[in-house]
Amino acid sequence: MADPRFFRAAGPFTVAELARLTGAEVGGAGRSDLSLADVAPLDTAGPTDLTFLANPKYAAAFQQTKAGAAFVHPDQAHRAPAGVTLLVTGNPYIAFARAARQFYPAPRPATGIAPSAVIDPSAVLGEGVAIAAHAVIGARVEIGAGSAIGANTVIGDGCVIGRDCLIGPNVTVSHCLMGDRVTLYPGARIGQDGFGFAMDPAGHVKIPQLGRVRIGDDVEIGANSTVDRGAGPDTVIGAGSMIDNLVQIAHNVVLGRGCVMVAQSGISGSSRLGDFVTVGGQAGIVGHLSVGEGAKVGGQAGVVRDVPAGTAVGGSPAVPIMQWHRQTAVLNRMAKKKDQ
Amino acid sequence: MADPRFFRAAGPFTVAELARLTGAEVGGAGRSDLSLADVAPLDTAGPTDLTFLANPKYAAAFQQTKAGAAFVHPDQAHRAPAGVTLLVTGNPYIAFARAARQFYPAPRPATGIAPSAVIDPSAVLGEGVAIAAHAVIGARVEIGAGSAIGANTVIGDGCVIGRDCLIGPNVTVSHCLMGDRVTLYPGARIGQDGFGFAMDPAGHVKIPQLGRVRIGDDVEIGANSTVDRGAGPDTVIGAGSMIDNLVQIAHNVVLGRGCVMVAQSGISGSSRLGDFVTVGGQAGIVGHLSVGEGAKVGGQAGVVRDVPAGTAVGGSPAVPIMQWHRQTAVLNRMAKKKDQ
Amino acid sequence: MADPRFFRAAGPFTVAELARLTGAEVGGAGRSDLSLADVAPLDTAGPTDLTFLANPKYAAAFQQTKAGAAFVHPDQAHRAPAGVTLLVTGNPYIAFARAARQFYPAPRPATGIAPSAVIDPSAVLGEGVAIAAHAVIGARVEIGAGSAIGANTVIGDGCVIGRDCLIGPNVTVSHCLMGDRVTLYPGARIGQDGFGFAMDPAGHVKIPQLGRVRIGDDVEIGANSTVDRGAGPDTVIGAGSMIDNLVQIAHNVVLGRGCVMVAQSGISGSSRLGDFVTVGGQAGIVGHLSVGEGAKVGGQAGVVRDVPAGTAVGGSPAVPIMQWHRQTAVLNRMAKKKDQ
Repeated sequence: MADPRFFRAAGPFTVAELARLTGAEVGGAGRSDLSLADVAPLDTAGPTDLTFLANPKYAAAFQQTKAGAAFVHPDQAHRAPAGVTLLVTGNPYIAFARAARQFYPAPRPATGIAPSAVIDPSAVLGEGVAIAAHAVIGARVEIGAGSAIGANTVIGDGCVIGRDCLIGPNVTVSHCLMGDRVTLYPGARIGQDGFGFAMDPAGHVKIPQLGRVRIGDDVEIGANSTVDRGAGPDTVIGAGSMIDNLVQIAHNVVLGRGCVMVAQSGISGSSRLGDFVTVGGQAGIVGHLSVGEGAKVGGQAGVVRDVPAGTAVGGSPAVPIMQWHRQTAVLNRMAKKKDQ
Repeated sequence: MADPRFFRAAGPFTVAELARLTGAEVGGAGRSDLSLADVAPLDTAGPTDLTFLANPKYAAAFQQTKAGAAFVHPDQAHRAPAGVTLLVTGNPYIAFARAARQFYPAPRPATGIAPSAVIDPSAVLGEGVAIAAHAVIGARVEIGAGSAIGANTVIGDGCVIGRDCLIGPNVTVSHCLMGDRVTLYPGARIGQDGFGFAMDPAGHVKIPQLGRVRIGDDVEIGANSTVDRGAGPDTVIGAGSMIDNLVQIAHNVVLGRGCVMVAQSGISGSSRLGDFVTVGGQAGIVGHLSVGEGAKVGGQAGVVRDVPAGTAVGGSPAVPIMQWHRQTAVLNRMAKKKDQ
Repeated sequence: MADPRFFRAAGPFTVAELARLTGAEVGGAGRSDLSLADVAPLDTAGPTDLTFLANPKYAAAFQQTKAGAAFVHPDQAHRAPAGVTLLVTGNPYIAFARAARQFYPAPRPATGIAPSAVIDPSAVLGEGVAIAAHAVIGARVEIGAGSAIGANTVIGDGCVIGRDCLIGPNVTVSHCLMGDRVTLYPGARIGQDGFGFAMDPAGHVKIPQLGRVRIGDDVEIGANSTVDRGAGPDTVIGAGSMIDNLVQIAHNVVLGRGCVMVAQSGISGSSRLGDFVTVGGQAGIVGHLSVGEGAKVGGQAGVVRDVPAGTAVGGSPAVPIMQWHRQTAVLNRMAKKKDQ
């Protein structure tokens, strides 16, 4: 059970309710009316807990689970111990994610405006907006209904924040137009100047950065990540993209829909990612490149050329992933030979 | 045109004024009295816009530009469409940067002290200093005339900040002596303890960090970058150095004048960079090294030996850049052979 | 001498006091009653200063030091100039660290609660707790005696902070149980959601993150580092671990006691480090791995397999360190051959 200091489960929910929510079919012990109080891992779940099997590696734990109910793929359903009610579905992980969000919806901060927040009189706040202590909201800011601004967060003049956004504490936002249901984690920095200047031995000359950051609906940006605004064009984060902690996104970068950037990865100026590109941890993409839809960039890869849609790359400089595996294999072999 | 929610152009300026500012010569259509209202890229500029051609790659766009005036190198001037007034100069990018700053000077926050700022009575503030909401200014801090401190920023006891500095929101500064016209972007952390301790299985023993951070004039330090103070000697950032986001600079590091560090690069303790060194994104330099004047460290490079002045290195461990290109070429070739 | 704007030495201390503190034996000039006013490097130390020789590389400077007293290993003691009182010990660096902390104890912020702090009435503060300006302390938070919370820091509902902790300014903590004597540097982000979601072209589905962060005694976490809370299990930082700046620790990661993570390194979800593991700068460890006690991960290494206890690895993908050195040597040789 999650620590009640920090979490409180909604529910209970019946198997039938969860089947309806996720489109799963009830099987196994088949108790559609079973009331489930919480979610739990396979090995610690008890008779009123919901669990799941997504990775066949955990089949042994599944065969011994004492859970009341479990999401499972049809191919694995036969492994269930007697007595477990099954929720059979083609994608048990997504189904479990949906169910778990029923038990633990994203917390809504108390609405209301903290007396210590400093809000410019020209700011426009939608219904039910929450502004936490010491937040600072600039001139002409617009914040959509149901959004929450964390403590000590600063929203710069003119920014637009959509509905039901969750802006964490100690965040800075400027020069930004944001969609709905965006989540910014603590310490995210959005909209500051891009790194643009003309190099000159007499003193580098800064180029005014005249674009914005546009963030689509349902985007998440992790703790202490940085997204610079455009230099003239905008920096764009496509709807549904998930950005982890300590990620750098430079000016004029465009991310398509549903992109995933793992922690400490970075993209240099003006590069464009298609939809559903994934970028591994600590990977880097140099400027002015194009990474096609669905491409996968491996962890610590250094991308210095365009990446075609649907392909995978690894290594630094990055090459097609199979070529990279061959490189590491041949190098390993040669280094061993040197011993003999 | 830049979004008026966020930007307001100064001007207009005549071609003659901009020629005087940048030292360019008026050519092409030659309308010195042409009044320019804004800056714009080659492809979207209109008859009252100023643009530029710096990279020959964009020569085609230049040949079709509808801009009123354009900075251009003498070698490219013949490509200009009729009707465009030229501002001919040996370095069109720097000239454009200077002109663009006329149109869009760095924004000066409203002066004045926010009522919610907490300022130690012993702090000394110069004329026209701006302190934004919820900023905290420690004992004996000195802030030079014209400087601005962002919202929720904390300046620790004893720090000295020069004139016309722009310290962003949510910044932390301690143990720091800063020159004039320094810019710190949101979330920058300056002056905390270096990572110094004696390793001991009975418990690592922290070494007191007794130095400072000295920042020269005209330095910029990016969002969420970290600069630790010295352990005994100081950490020094030379005048005019440009540091991007999420960069780590460890204790006792010394950067010369005009250095450039791209996002997510890092320098370990006590290494020294000469003037005008450039460090690519995600590159790392281990401790106690010397990188000579004008050296270039490639992106993701791992520098483990001194780098002579004027040379370029790449790879991890870093080697001279041509050697690195040969390494990647030979490895690629060998990996392909393995296929056959 | 350390800049009195920022530092004030305790003391003076006699050689005899420091010998007692560190277990060193008095030798050389042997003045046990010599009163020492400060610590200093070998080359700048004067007759009332304490210094040390830990690295034989600095033997020449040691032979010319004008320090009053010096910690030194028995093997190097013969190199001391006449007149220097020696404090002879098997580990001069640790001894010096201990002595230096006598001269410069960790600064204790003034106790007391700033009037501008916002503290939930249900929070429980121990004796002598200091809360700086604009800090925000959530509901049911418990803070142990002698701990200090920095300016503009946000401690989320339900967190437990032990005794004598030093939480810097502009820090965010949530979902966290912390031991005693923990130091969090400015901008550290502790306890936010891990990066967990089920990927789905129709929109990635977030997995509720139901664990906590548990931080052991005497841990330090650097500026702008990020530690996500667990997804169900906890994220755990073992006692005495030292974490540098801009480090990423993902959900469910477990660090043993005394681990060291250098700047910009990162660990993906659910990986486990044994006691006293060291991770070099910019190194990455992928998820679900085990790194054994005392293992050493080189700078920029990319660990993709379990690392046995007591071994060292380097390279990306990481291999045993000797194998990595052979790889770089053979590659270098082959690239040179290509020239001929």
